[in-house]
Amino acid sequence: MGPEFQLIDAFVAAAAASPRGPRGPGDDAAVLPRGRGEICVTVDAVVEGVHFRRASSRLEDVGHKALAVNLSDLAAMGARPRWALVALGVPRGFRIADARRLGAGFGALARQSGTALVGGNVTRAPGLALTVTVGGEVAPGRALRRSGARPGDRVWASGTLGDARLGLALLERRGGPEARRLRGAPRLARMAIERQRRPVPRLALGAALVGVASSCIDLSDGLVQDARHVAAASGVALDLDGGLLPVSRALVAAYPDGRARARAAASGGEDYELLFTAPAGREAAIRRLSGRLGLELTRIGEVRRGRGVHLRGTGTARVHGFDHLA
Amino acid sequence: MGPEFQLIDAFVAAAAASPRGPRGPGDDAAVLPRGRGEICVTVDAVVEGVHFRRASSRLEDVGHKALAVNLSDLAAMGARPRWALVALGVPRGFRIADARRLGAGFGALARQSGTALVGGNVTRAPGLALTVTVGGEVAPGRALRRSGARPGDRVWASGTLGDARLGLALLERRGGPEARRLRGAPRLARMAIERQRRPVPRLALGAALVGVASSCIDLSDGLVQDARHVAAASGVALDLDGGLLPVSRALVAAYPDGRARARAAASGGEDYELLFTAPAGREAAIRRLSGRLGLELTRIGEVRRGRGVHLRGTGTARVHGFDHLA
Repeated sequence: MGPEFQLIDAFVAAAAASPRGPRGPGDDAAVLPRGRGEICVTVDAVVEGVHFRRASSRLEDVGHKALAVNLSDLAAMGARPRWALVALGVPRGFRIADARRLGAGFGALARQSGTALVGGNVTRAPGLALTVTVGGEVAPGRALRRSGARPGDRVWASGTLGDARLGLALLERRGGPEARRLRGAPRLARMAIERQRRPVPRLALGAALVGVASSCIDLSDGLVQDARHVAAASGVALDLDGGLLPVSRALVAAYPDGRARARAAASGGEDYELLFTAPAGREAAIRRLSGRLGLELTRIGEVRRGRGVHLRGTGTARVHGFDHLA
Repeated sequence: MGPEFQLIDAFVAAAAASPRGPRGPGDDAAVLPRGRGEICVTVDAVVEGVHFRRASSRLEDVGHKALAVNLSDLAAMGARPRWALVALGVPRGFRIADARRLGAGFGALARQSGTALVGGNVTRAPGLALTVTVGGEVAPGRALRRSGARPGDRVWASGTLGDARLGLALLERRGGPEARRLRGAPRLARMAIERQRRPVPRLALGAALVGVASSCIDLSDGLVQDARHVAAASGVALDLDGGLLPVSRALVAAYPDGRARARAAASGGEDYELLFTAPAGREAAIRRLSGRLGLELTRIGEVRRGRGVHLRGTGTARVHGFDHLA
């Protein structure tokens, strides 16, 4: 058996305590039982030199993040994760111990989220790349869509925005004055870096929003850019208030100016929070949900007739998103 | 909108005449309806510099092959393809027109095989990489497994073996005397190259083998290496006869010596034919199936008690497979 099989074995063994599919790794394809609901499927890749650098990332974190960004998509659909497939691209010199560390990070989140690793593939690649496919289940006809926002609905965001982008700037030792201001606050800096390295998919929130939210999307490319998808799919305009965007103490320390802070919160990518809309009458239910989940849910704007995303309170007409190809 | 969206649009538009999923590309995840059977899922990647070179491959062929190698896994399970997700890694300088050509090759096979492109993802990568996930349906409990071979069963292979590996040697302008011998036979050389570039997944065969074959696997790593998986999963030995292996006229021309030819047929990877076992009493049914499908099905050996794969008639004790990491 070649190194291909040894790497698969090491990854699977490390990730293995995750619940297994009924007929897991070991055949040409995994066979999944029929569930009671509809299946949501999505795929996302984490690529060395694009989404992380080996020098500044632990492989456990890379394994975690590769699964987390996919689970975040399921969260945005209101789906419960069921299974995952992993396609691993490994550069020369990638060791068995490396595969084990990658698998450990993946496996911890898989266990925690109830995701069964049911199969995968290893191939040589110029740099390390993990492409993860996940399947989740949602009651028939109940998946949260981008297309359901209606004029009069309120716009909500979970958690805090902009931290992951700030964390990236800190990791890369760039980012100008904002990063310098955090040098005196190492705990805040660590929090921002942690959010960049180990995003938390909002699965419990997504599942609880089924029947409550009118539309939902996860924030991977930045608030404004992702909000545009909701506006376009729903055929409405989203009015967002920069002054209402939820921010962490780290963002406040990094951006003392309120409008600059709002710009950072509105444009930072990789937050993996949920942006959702809901009828005005659902406000009390959403506030109760926030308390039950221990997760901040903030009203940041309103849906109206029209098109596009309109963000006020940032001191600029245009706020750009985060382009993964940039 | 950034180049990310333009590349997705170009790929999807080119692949688009493929049957769409009920809620195809355009949300955080695709929502699939409940089918009547069990779902088989698998993932495989095609990576520039590993599985193909831009200099010697047309992008249409790369798009075709990325889907074909996955459909081949579904064929080996006896499953009918239903949907696919595509994760595209694109290097700098990859153009909209390139995405269109890639999508065209993918889409033609998707249409032909009834595979709906339901979603995907584009990211920057050091080289072009297509990671494709496919889902197929099989009647509950009827999937073909690697583990069902029983002593006394016959071993069968579809099509001809070794051509794709020969085609690779020709493409790479190496391969020594065998490649030189084909210089005088350009049609045979083109056939071998075509098998390397555009493998044909044996979907109709796989589906027809449900209820007939006792085990099945697709030949991606080479006959001996893949046969080992069947032997191990089934807890049996496979006795294969090198003199019986089905070979093309191209292989005969490239390897005039019968034992060298058998070694080439037994070790060449990427044939994407099916290797299957069936009870002796099924021989007549399999020969009828061969006629109906217009596809050569050849009895190449027998299953017996024991372990491992034993290949005679090659003049050597060991025949190695094809390691995708080598």
